[in-house]
Amino acid sequence: MGSSQSALNFGAGPAKLPSEVLYDVQQEFLSYKNTGMSLIEMSHRSKEYMEINDNAEKAVRELLKVPSNYKILFLQGGGCGTFAAIPLNLMNRTGSADYAVTGTWSAKAAKEAAKYGKYSQNLRDREVFPDESTWTLNPNASYLYYCDNETVDGVEFPKIPNSHDVPLVADMSSIRCYIWRCPKNIGPSGVVVVIVREDLLGNAMKVCPSVLDFTHVAKEKSIHNTPSTFSVYVMEKVLQWIKKNGGVAAMQTQIVPLTIGSEVGLIYHFVGGKNGNESLEAKFVEEAEKLKMYQLKGHRSVGGIRASLYNAITVSDVELLVKFMVEFQKQYGPKP
Amino acid sequence: MGSSQSALNFGAGPAKLPSEVLYDVQQEFLSYKNTGMSLIEMSHRSKEYMEINDNAEKAVRELLKVPSNYKILFLQGGGCGTFAAIPLNLMNRTGSADYAVTGTWSAKAAKEAAKYGKYSQNLRDREVFPDESTWTLNPNASYLYYCDNETVDGVEFPKIPNSHDVPLVADMSSIRCYIWRCPKNIGPSGVVVVIVREDLLGNAMKVCPSVLDFTHVAKEKSIHNTPSTFSVYVMEKVLQWIKKNGGVAAMQTQIVPLTIGSEVGLIYHFVGGKNGNESLEAKFVEEAEKLKMYQLKGHRSVGGIRASLYNAITVSDVELLVKFMVEFQKQYGPKP
Repeated sequence: MGSSQSALNFGAGPAKLPSEVLYDVQQEFLSYKNTGMSLIEMSHRSKEYMEINDNAEKAVRELLKVPSNYKILFLQGGGCGTFAAIPLNLMNRTGSADYAVTGTWSAKAAKEAAKYGKYSQNLRDREVFPDESTWTLNPNASYLYYCDNETVDGVEFPKIPNSHDVPLVADMSSIRCYIWRCPKNIGPSGVVVVIVREDLLGNAMKVCPSVLDFTHVAKEKSIHNTPSTFSVYVMEKVLQWIKKNGGVAAMQTQIVPLTIGSEVGLIYHFVGGKNGNESLEAKFVEEAEKLKMYQLKGHRSVGGIRASLYNAITVSDVELLVKFMVEFQKQYGPKP
Repeated sequence: MGSSQSALNFGAGPAKLPSEVLYDVQQEFLSYKNTGMSLIEMSHRSKEYMEINDNAEKAVRELLKVPSNYKILFLQGGGCGTFAAIPLNLMNRTGSADYAVTGTWSAKAAKEAAKYGKYSQNLRDREVFPDESTWTLNPNASYLYYCDNETVDGVEFPKIPNSHDVPLVADMSSIRCYIWRCPKNIGPSGVVVVIVREDLLGNAMKVCPSVLDFTHVAKEKSIHNTPSTFSVYVMEKVLQWIKKNGGVAAMQTQIVPLTIGSEVGLIYHFVGGKNGNESLEAKFVEEAEKLKMYQLKGHRSVGGIRASLYNAITVSDVELLVKFMVEFQKQYGPKP
């Protein structure tokens, strides 16, 4: 699982990918499986691409132990496209949905949902994670939506919330290995993974674009129109790499939770944010880049510094980052 | 403009790309501009990707001489996504649109448009191209839609139709170098190029997903959410390759129209189709593949044989194909 790259990439997405996978893609880039053609030149209906598509689906099913009554779909349009696809496909049942707004991403999802029906925001306090017992859920909601890891705000759900009899929709895009939408940690941008229970299909609104219609995509096994073939191809390789390296369990335990500043989690925010020192943050980024540590700038909406530790980040990568942080603190932090 | 590849790829899309571009992508795949990171691992808001995005837009503007009052947008979702995006963005003005249905792709576009308003089909006869004077156009239509090259049916518009005072929407995705949606001949799948006049923006329907909202995408310069960064990156390289090789004019004149069977055009359909001999078609594909000529099978909806001659196909590629076809005809065709 080592990195042959010289740079340390802590980007939040697009993010670091396993170096073995990148090397493999490079090796076969001009001639996929000795066809004399690049994979990116081949039809999405060629037997070569159909096999990649099938294998990617099988790998997701195996790695995440997806039951057979759930469909696995590959969509385009990124997380924001899926924010629309969810109400377009699932809100028709009752015309309303519950959104647990705990940060930037769930707020965006709720805003998009408002185009298609009513929604209730349950959790307005973004600073402290609200206790589940205090939520007021609508028993007639078509679904309860939540974002497992709010990467901008640093809010992570401690456990899967109880939605009682209402279907639960989870944005799992920024979990180490777990996936739901943009697989930023299992491939390049351009593909979204949606896992949906079969009995929820068939309820798309009339105004749902075909490319976002889960039922249509499921029927056509994600090749209803030309997908971003390169994205699915690289994702399939990363999924095989995860399998080879011990599966989801290994990805989850590989990095021991480390305490940096006051936050523990898989995405660390430190030095600032809203109350930060912008010139010190710029200095941090500048000094880090001298050591070839990249993409540490916080999300543009909140500033600060952010280090994302997805699947391909190794323990030694983190150790190097911590070492640098400790030294930075010594040099630029408050003197005793 | 020669091909260093051993295979001849006549695919209709994803299709052959210039070998210089593929080689270049391979060379810098592990370390983009000596950053030690692959381009696919870099943030879409990194200065490196922003530059690619800007350069791609500039190159489209320069190559196609796009006036300054037109926006150039890069979307996801392929042609089918754009079939929905067009009525979602442009049909609101009057609630109806005219669709010149001349084949498979315009029929699909019209079907998608029916989700959002009324549309009239003007041209039902797919076999013979209807004379423009026979069309009945609705002067109150929000726009007139047509598909310049119907690649499945082999129908190409001889000239840009006259839409009088109604805005014209053209699907230019399968024209040698001209572009409108999936740039199958200027890059891999995963990105759609939309060129839209500024004064038509700002009219999106309430139910338009943000990712398909032209106004929103234009405002954010096509980086409103994570694009398929690799697709835009390769496209930008192909656009520079076209510029270096004489621009659009050179792409259009490079291949002298050749007559194969009874059809002349940039996409050739021959041996069969609906009235074809399926076993002879299979033989044709099999024999062609022995000579490393690939992706000659016709579209699954009509069968037959199809050779697409996009930008990266050279005259010598076509000569080899013609030579093979003449020999195939001699061996398997009707004996004198």
